[in-house]
Amino acid sequence: MDYKVILARDLRETNLKQAEENLGIFNKAGVTVINLISSPGAGKTSLLEVTLQKLLPEINIGIIEGDLATAYDADRLAPYKIPLVQINTAGACHLDAAMIRRAMEELPLEDLDLVFIENVGNLVCPAEFDLGEDAKVALLSVAEGSDKPLKYPFIFQKARLLLITKTDLLPYTNFDLPSVHRQVRQLNPSLEILPLSALTGEGLEGWYAWLKGLVHQKKAARKGCATA
Amino acid sequence: MDYKVILARDLRETNLKQAEENLGIFNKAGVTVINLISSPGAGKTSLLEVTLQKLLPEINIGIIEGDLATAYDADRLAPYKIPLVQINTAGACHLDAAMIRRAMEELPLEDLDLVFIENVGNLVCPAEFDLGEDAKVALLSVAEGSDKPLKYPFIFQKARLLLITKTDLLPYTNFDLPSVHRQVRQLNPSLEILPLSALTGEGLEGWYAWLKGLVHQKKAARKGCATA
Repeated sequence: MDYKVILARDLRETNLKQAEENLGIFNKAGVTVINLISSPGAGKTSLLEVTLQKLLPEINIGIIEGDLATAYDADRLAPYKIPLVQINTAGACHLDAAMIRRAMEELPLEDLDLVFIENVGNLVCPAEFDLGEDAKVALLSVAEGSDKPLKYPFIFQKARLLLITKTDLLPYTNFDLPSVHRQVRQLNPSLEILPLSALTGEGLEGWYAWLKGLVHQKKAARKGCATA
Repeated sequence: MDYKVILARDLRETNLKQAEENLGIFNKAGVTVINLISSPGAGKTSLLEVTLQKLLPEINIGIIEGDLATAYDADRLAPYKIPLVQINTAGACHLDAAMIRRAMEELPLEDLDLVFIENVGNLVCPAEFDLGEDAKVALLSVAEGSDKPLKYPFIFQKARLLLITKTDLLPYTNFDLPSVHRQVRQLNPSLEILPLSALTGEGLEGWYAWLKGLVHQKKAARKGCATA
């Protein structure tokens, strides 16, 4: 047989290697990279809209949008006149590091401080594929219910920050925030949890502060390397 | 090389063959099978709870629960004392026909009229894997937003019924039902759309009528075969 056998494990290892290369390129440019992961409709694009309104032009932001189909999310963000790349995965249920490598070529990395990658809406598959990001940020909408961490454990184990979104809907749901805290403590004790609402603005200051902390840290690290 | 090369296409074809066998077994037993597919937290288990409360004991119901981890959903349905099988996919992002074949062995098919399969919460991957069901039913919660059909087209192309869930939250969201109708018309003109709320009961009579229609049709088909 002339075929090469490609095992799923090999694919993940190839992806991991590509992700490390991506991170090296981002680090060299001093760019902080955030990989946003959630179910469809948890509010990733809405969060990006308010974040752009707040942080531009103080922080130079680029965005990579991942979707199965359409460029609707990119269309929503286009009015902000930022470097923006839409990836259509044509059926793939997550972004991978090779797709990001290709998208990076379209971004002016030397002019950017922060790149958001909005993954395909999927609480399962994106957790397994590193992209070269500094941090995975998971979003869980209060409308999805509070039993999700233990039922979908992988993303909660991999994320550095968990945003509980759409807190404006809390009065109309049975969402149990203390239960989420208990489940997260069991899965990933270092995972920070931040409830917020892009509609009312609740909690957004904490999100902006967290982002700025990472951006300044990365810039400082780059300066340290340059003078070392 | 002694390896057998397994292409993704072969896996899907193997799955399709197994799904057809499953459907044959279900048909022989006169059991109607519904595959429930949605994002995490769209309300699949809540819908099953009210459906069991309404249709038992008139209709004999069995359930196959699919989750990455935990048996929380099965625990919620256990009080109804129905035949119930929990599948933990151990990381797989969807159920497949072989998992269902194994679960069917645990169900008393000859005593059942209707089997619900609650798929892993995922709007992407489950659409590609037939299980041997009579119909895929997609759920979309109003909290997820109304831009989903064109962004996640596959499940909307494959489903026979689309349930718009959590309509009790409509006053607090910007969900645009006419837009969903327009998108669905473009993707799959024969897809029926039924808005409902498991909390207020709105729309549930239509859901029960749809289910009873399928169950009676399947029973009639079986009788026709037996007397032919």
